[in-house]
Amino acid sequence: MENKLNEIEDVLLMGPGPSCVPESVYAALSRKTLGHMDPLFIEIMDEVKKLLLVVMQTQNRMTIPISGTGSAGMETCFVNLVEKDDPVLILINGVFGKRMQDVASRLGARVDALEFEWGTPVLLDRVEEKLKSSHYRILAVVHAETSTGVKNPVEEIGRMLQGKDTFYLVDAVTSLGGIRVATDEWGVDALYSGSQKCLSCPPGLSPVSFSNRALEAVLGRKTKVPNWYLDLSLLTQYWGGKSRVYHHTAPINMIYALYQSLLLIVEEGFENVCRRHQDCHRRLVQGLEALGLAMLVSPDHRLPMLNSLFIPEGADDAGVRRRLRNEYKIEIGAGLGPLAGKIWRIGLMGHTARPENVDRVLGALKEILGR
Amino acid sequence: MENKLNEIEDVLLMGPGPSCVPESVYAALSRKTLGHMDPLFIEIMDEVKKLLLVVMQTQNRMTIPISGTGSAGMETCFVNLVEKDDPVLILINGVFGKRMQDVASRLGARVDALEFEWGTPVLLDRVEEKLKSSHYRILAVVHAETSTGVKNPVEEIGRMLQGKDTFYLVDAVTSLGGIRVATDEWGVDALYSGSQKCLSCPPGLSPVSFSNRALEAVLGRKTKVPNWYLDLSLLTQYWGGKSRVYHHTAPINMIYALYQSLLLIVEEGFENVCRRHQDCHRRLVQGLEALGLAMLVSPDHRLPMLNSLFIPEGADDAGVRRRLRNEYKIEIGAGLGPLAGKIWRIGLMGHTARPENVDRVLGALKEILGR
Repeated sequence: MENKLNEIEDVLLMGPGPSCVPESVYAALSRKTLGHMDPLFIEIMDEVKKLLLVVMQTQNRMTIPISGTGSAGMETCFVNLVEKDDPVLILINGVFGKRMQDVASRLGARVDALEFEWGTPVLLDRVEEKLKSSHYRILAVVHAETSTGVKNPVEEIGRMLQGKDTFYLVDAVTSLGGIRVATDEWGVDALYSGSQKCLSCPPGLSPVSFSNRALEAVLGRKTKVPNWYLDLSLLTQYWGGKSRVYHHTAPINMIYALYQSLLLIVEEGFENVCRRHQDCHRRLVQGLEALGLAMLVSPDHRLPMLNSLFIPEGADDAGVRRRLRNEYKIEIGAGLGPLAGKIWRIGLMGHTARPENVDRVLGALKEILGR
Repeated sequence: MENKLNEIEDVLLMGPGPSCVPESVYAALSRKTLGHMDPLFIEIMDEVKKLLLVVMQTQNRMTIPISGTGSAGMETCFVNLVEKDDPVLILINGVFGKRMQDVASRLGARVDALEFEWGTPVLLDRVEEKLKSSHYRILAVVHAETSTGVKNPVEEIGRMLQGKDTFYLVDAVTSLGGIRVATDEWGVDALYSGSQKCLSCPPGLSPVSFSNRALEAVLGRKTKVPNWYLDLSLLTQYWGGKSRVYHHTAPINMIYALYQSLLLIVEEGFENVCRRHQDCHRRLVQGLEALGLAMLVSPDHRLPMLNSLFIPEGADDAGVRRRLRNEYKIEIGAGLGPLAGKIWRIGLMGHTARPENVDRVLGALKEILGR
């Protein structure tokens, strides 16, 4: 029979994720499958937890990869913390803030939203005002809005919540492994990420971390978590403690790959990884501006790993992306929601963030746009 | 840094899953990652759907792999079909029936359970009696109880439900790809499986199939599905139709692996695959009986892919399994729940179901038990 896998080419992944995967991570992925209760696999689980603590800058014992993609991590954070009618404040300035609103509403939370223009950051004074007038059980925000390229002031919001009993829930899907994510220092209670962004592992896992007070709240819920698969009180028994209790069969090979990708980050050194992202970002912005292209986000609020530029007048959005993919073997991202047809998104995530990749996409855009 | 992955050995996986993975599936797993909206990846998604239709014996257009392990498939079937206070009947004769009860209860269903002794099948007359006295929105049963090795009479129960408006929900995690699963012919409305059993792909995906009437019920719900990640009405827009709408980032490489594993089954021919499972099962039972070991399940109700045998008197449960793993590089499964310490479970799933593997485990048991 025809096998479509034989048609797979090496595409330079410069979209909003997945990012390019290092050879050693592919090699890890295809190591022999072990049983999910195998003693060696349990040692590997423990190593993954330890490496996540380093990368997430936390001591939270409830720090594990969830067996699903980033959105499963979002679901995990909300479904464990929300009980019916809990007041939740969500700060929205892109697709992923909107998604949080949908996820929390489905779970029966009373959701308040503060919306900000897409392409601009969350404004602290509006948040402060809101927190003065109402009490929330959860405040949720996206650190790196992948749909726009905006970095939100997660550290500053954390300071506002100090001493309050509000749980602080942060989406670090695109930020983790590319810029600093200081879970404990910022007072984050529930954080989730994805394997396929700056961690440069294929998609399929979502690392999460819960503070001890958040975990206590989960263990002390009035009602059972309405999601057996993502119930942290069950997951802790498989991922922690001396006698591991079978919950579900972990995605063994994906966990090998995550382990290897975390090792690579720790070996390179987190400072170096961040600098590499920042340097590539500067190189890209300079190059784009030299081509007369304009960035969506103002310099102070730009993410290094997700660069949104306005589609220049006269350029064919889908046509340019199609030529990049077919002729140059480069993937970049389209705009979403109100930014569809208006911006392109160039990812510089993890292993993709290399000067030679920046030069390659700049060269291709120069040729295609005739600039 | 020390890399634990270097310690991974080639273990013969004869437990309750994961099963052994063919070389071509490992190779598929480590193909270059494509974007989740890449045209070639979308073609691969379409091929996976087509192959699932063949293996599941269905024409259901809603037939896709869920981005999570088998338990996420269970969650998907219940969370999409159950609305608060819906009456649900669950037939229980092992761990996975029990799990269904927990999953459905958490979602607010009014759950009735019929329990049967572990190691024996669901009794049809008790089901029939129950269906006469009460009306259910959903009847759920496990086809192949992995915790005991019992095959439940899924076809016969399907016949009882003919003409009724009860949705028929079947767990085919361990049966799919090893024995016949005739989704349409048996009148199944919601079926889920797992990648790591008889499909011989690593764990991480759960193929599901929904009948058209079940899908209509999902699309016509009174309330939104309380789980954004697993909401079929959103998943259909990414997996089906002409214009694919981004939902979550699919586990790209795992889907390559599932594609390859399904291709292998279709290429071998399903009849041949079933015969291979049956032949290996017979060879194993004969060998075990020749060693004086007794099977838990009576011959008529045994699964070929999961063989439960009583631990012989005087044998050290954990000690024997540890020696098998460490000295012979063979994994077999322990008993669960009331069968813990009483049985061992030997899996003959997918690629594991080869006569040479049967002979290897028989030889090892003979030596260790001194028989």
